[in-house]
Amino acid sequence: MYKVDLNSDLGESFGLYKIGSDEEIIRTVTSVNVACGIHAGDPMVMDKTIKMCMEHGTAVGAHPGFPDLQGFGRRQMQMKKGELKNYILYQLGALDAFARLHGTRLQHVKPHGALNNMMPYSEQYSREICEAILAFDPELILVAPTNTMTLQMARDMGLRTVSEVFADRAYQDDGYLLSRSCPEAVLTDEDEAIKRVIRMIKNKTVISVTGKEIPIQADSVCIHSDSAIALNYAKKVRKALEAEGIVLCSMKEMLG
Amino acid sequence: MYKVDLNSDLGESFGLYKIGSDEEIIRTVTSVNVACGIHAGDPMVMDKTIKMCMEHGTAVGAHPGFPDLQGFGRRQMQMKKGELKNYILYQLGALDAFARLHGTRLQHVKPHGALNNMMPYSEQYSREICEAILAFDPELILVAPTNTMTLQMARDMGLRTVSEVFADRAYQDDGYLLSRSCPEAVLTDEDEAIKRVIRMIKNKTVISVTGKEIPIQADSVCIHSDSAIALNYAKKVRKALEAEGIVLCSMKEMLG
Amino acid sequence: MYKVDLNSDLGESFGLYKIGSDEEIIRTVTSVNVACGIHAGDPMVMDKTIKMCMEHGTAVGAHPGFPDLQGFGRRQMQMKKGELKNYILYQLGALDAFARLHGTRLQHVKPHGALNNMMPYSEQYSREICEAILAFDPELILVAPTNTMTLQMARDMGLRTVSEVFADRAYQDDGYLLSRSCPEAVLTDEDEAIKRVIRMIKNKTVISVTGKEIPIQADSVCIHSDSAIALNYAKKVRKALEAEGIVLCSMKEMLG
Amino acid sequence: MYKVDLNSDLGESFGLYKIGSDEEIIRTVTSVNVACGIHAGDPMVMDKTIKMCMEHGTAVGAHPGFPDLQGFGRRQMQMKKGELKNYILYQLGALDAFARLHGTRLQHVKPHGALNNMMPYSEQYSREICEAILAFDPELILVAPTNTMTLQMARDMGLRTVSEVFADRAYQDDGYLLSRSCPEAVLTDEDEAIKRVIRMIKNKTVISVTGKEIPIQADSVCIHSDSAIALNYAKKVRKALEAEGIVLCSMKEMLG
Repeated sequence: MYKVDLNSDLGESFGLYKIGSDEEIIRTVTSVNVACGIHAGDPMVMDKTIKMCMEHGTAVGAHPGFPDLQGFGRRQMQMKKGELKNYILYQLGALDAFARLHGTRLQHVKPHGALNNMMPYSEQYSREICEAILAFDPELILVAPTNTMTLQMARDMGLRTVSEVFADRAYQDDGYLLSRSCPEAVLTDEDEAIKRVIRMIKNKTVISVTGKEIPIQADSVCIHSDSAIALNYAKKVRKALEAEGIVLCSMKEMLG
Repeated sequence: MYKVDLNSDLGESFGLYKIGSDEEIIRTVTSVNVACGIHAGDPMVMDKTIKMCMEHGTAVGAHPGFPDLQGFGRRQMQMKKGELKNYILYQLGALDAFARLHGTRLQHVKPHGALNNMMPYSEQYSREICEAILAFDPELILVAPTNTMTLQMARDMGLRTVSEVFADRAYQDDGYLLSRSCPEAVLTDEDEAIKRVIRMIKNKTVISVTGKEIPIQADSVCIHSDSAIALNYAKKVRKALEAEGIVLCSMKEMLG
Repeated sequence: MYKVDLNSDLGESFGLYKIGSDEEIIRTVTSVNVACGIHAGDPMVMDKTIKMCMEHGTAVGAHPGFPDLQGFGRRQMQMKKGELKNYILYQLGALDAFARLHGTRLQHVKPHGALNNMMPYSEQYSREICEAILAFDPELILVAPTNTMTLQMARDMGLRTVSEVFADRAYQDDGYLLSRSCPEAVLTDEDEAIKRVIRMIKNKTVISVTGKEIPIQADSVCIHSDSAIALNYAKKVRKALEAEGIVLCSMKEMLG
Repeated sequence: MYKVDLNSDLGESFGLYKIGSDEEIIRTVTSVNVACGIHAGDPMVMDKTIKMCMEHGTAVGAHPGFPDLQGFGRRQMQMKKGELKNYILYQLGALDAFARLHGTRLQHVKPHGALNNMMPYSEQYSREICEAILAFDPELILVAPTNTMTLQMARDMGLRTVSEVFADRAYQDDGYLLSRSCPEAVLTDEDEAIKRVIRMIKNKTVISVTGKEIPIQADSVCIHSDSAIALNYAKKVRKALEAEGIVLCSMKEMLG
């Protein structure tokens, strides 16, 4: 039996500013990554997002990012040794308070934006993220891009991990994501992307940008949430996977 | 046997900005109120402050404030219904992550600055602070100014409470603190203030600004920390209390 | 000949967060109040907003607010003496840089949100706003609610002023706006509101909430911008005023 | 006749947080770089700092930095095309409001911290800084590290420039500063550093880290301000330069 989790970044509104069709996405995916008030989100949004997840039975995780609200955590930042660990701890704790309020526990951690992009290339960042999680709650699952050094390091440090794939992104021969700065980075054909992700789940391989077949571990598929198109696509992916007999389940259910 | 706790606001540095002789104060008081990165403090400072408390065996609590770094949480802010509860939860959670990191648990919550001043006059603020604590951890002790409505409400809601007094502040006939905007609000004679606080602890009374003897419950004495003078005064208070045979202990030890 | 200005608050997006149909509103009103990056807006948004105003020939003014992005400047804040003046100066200067970039000059200043609500009741706030404007550029026009102490003070201090009215808000007998906390504060009948504003402009009177006819000076009408409904209403108001032969012109043109 | 300017970064306090012996440094140097409320400083500090400069006749310039208060502008940030220009404009305008308030004009612009370090290696950053200055006030002088591409670009774009040197920093053969990450980057012998800076001014050369004599243009010497040691050193440098008959003058006086 094939299983997969669908995860999406939510709770990214801030004050009067609204982003995302959170409630509808929450009904479509199996795990939600909630912003922690540092690159996006605020205490009211965190409260409301976890409340909605509880109502729909969707698993909740933390989505920590760089302290850069104006850049939405998408601008690379250089942290001194030890800083990132503390920023991650801060965000895990802050979000956890709202999990407690609603009687649940955090399932996973998925870094956001520029941090998630830098992580697989930075031993320091990868290590500090893992250390923060281990100190906070060693049961938390780290979500990291498939094939990355970060995933391996996390496992070596004793963390539970989930290997994340993108349906609509090109992969290099080494299994890393091709940078968005390359023209072939994003696949625009939705149906092709869906076929591709089904192959990832069933065959555990993907065709790289140079045409090689490379191994890939698709525990969770990242689903965008920031537009009406994204929402329709999310529903389409879900339907296609179910039609293939692939069971959609949260990360926790997958890891057992 | 007379017992009292000495509490002080610490961990108020931010980034490159340093405030307070934290390490020395930590050696002098029995409970420390740590800023949570909203009106002061940051993840690095929170980490370091709790680490120092652990090394010296000083109990750690949260010191949540208004989201106003530039005003150091000292400017009154008007919150919509439900907002304050979420801000308190956010700050409790964030600080708790560093308590976990250092293998301890938070002992208490003491609101900061303008929030602490508004609280006894606002049923909404008092209630939301209590609700946040109850949702986060019902074992946490709420520290509130002696004789206030907040203390009574907290007890009615089932919270453990500590009644806080100031050695160097004038009290009104109703037992509330006289506002700092009044000229007689602060007692400048240190020795007089120390005698006064000893009377509070032993007699459970204080002479109000109009000369009346009023009841007061001195579970904890607030000790300032923001200057060399404050530090010396802290040591002097401690010594004087010990000379009177008053046992200094943390809030937890006091409540048993 | 009757003349009136239509003003609207714009440039309130922040980073990835978008608010308002700015370009369409800019085509509809005659003066635009641009957020200055403190309660809303950021350097990119300020650049873009002034650029659009230049393209459509709409006059540009500053819309300074409280330093509270998370509350969108809508939470009352207590400032120490002298603070507000400096916050206003900071915001005027920051916005002026983008006026320079696009080869224009600021026309006016209209305080935002909670600051605009507190101003008519606070001599300190009113005075500091006027002082900031006088120090920055004594040609700048202050926009303040009709009938308020602030308007009179500004004139006494030598400032040029514009008296602002709301089509859809109830007025007290003393000519001040009825607080939004009162149920009758907002008129929901659009056509009634439009008739009402035409009377304000032509008769210089309005019927207060108690039914009295009171004097009102309608130099500028505030137009909301935060929804599709608001945009349609703006167009409807403009059309109705033009149909009455009322000339729409910027504040500068009105004051001559 | 030899002339040189001494510049120092000031106005870096924030809210309750105090940094630097600003008043004493203002008496010692000839040009002051004032933080603009983005990486440090706030409206109250900007007001006070420019006021002090006016009282002591010290020239005032802007010290814009990255939007990262918690990192004090010392963490590298990746900006999208066009963003930096707008951040610089914002900061120039904000500071200029306080120059107006005190009846003076800004003399120069010196980027801060990580921005100043990245600038000589980034054509994009260098160009956007120059564009912002040209749009805001083409009379403003850009201060950039000696021998850098930025200086040349600024001149090519028509800006007035000042070439800045450090007395206590090692230079590479190409004339760029040796990174602080290298152990030989900072000269700790004060007297040696002073001799070195005198040679820079008189001979227009410096001995590089590999022992080569390389050309250097010492229009202004950067003076640290963040400690008591820094202040004493500043006075010592000033005295030594004067003893050598080198005239201390502001950038404006130097460029004529």
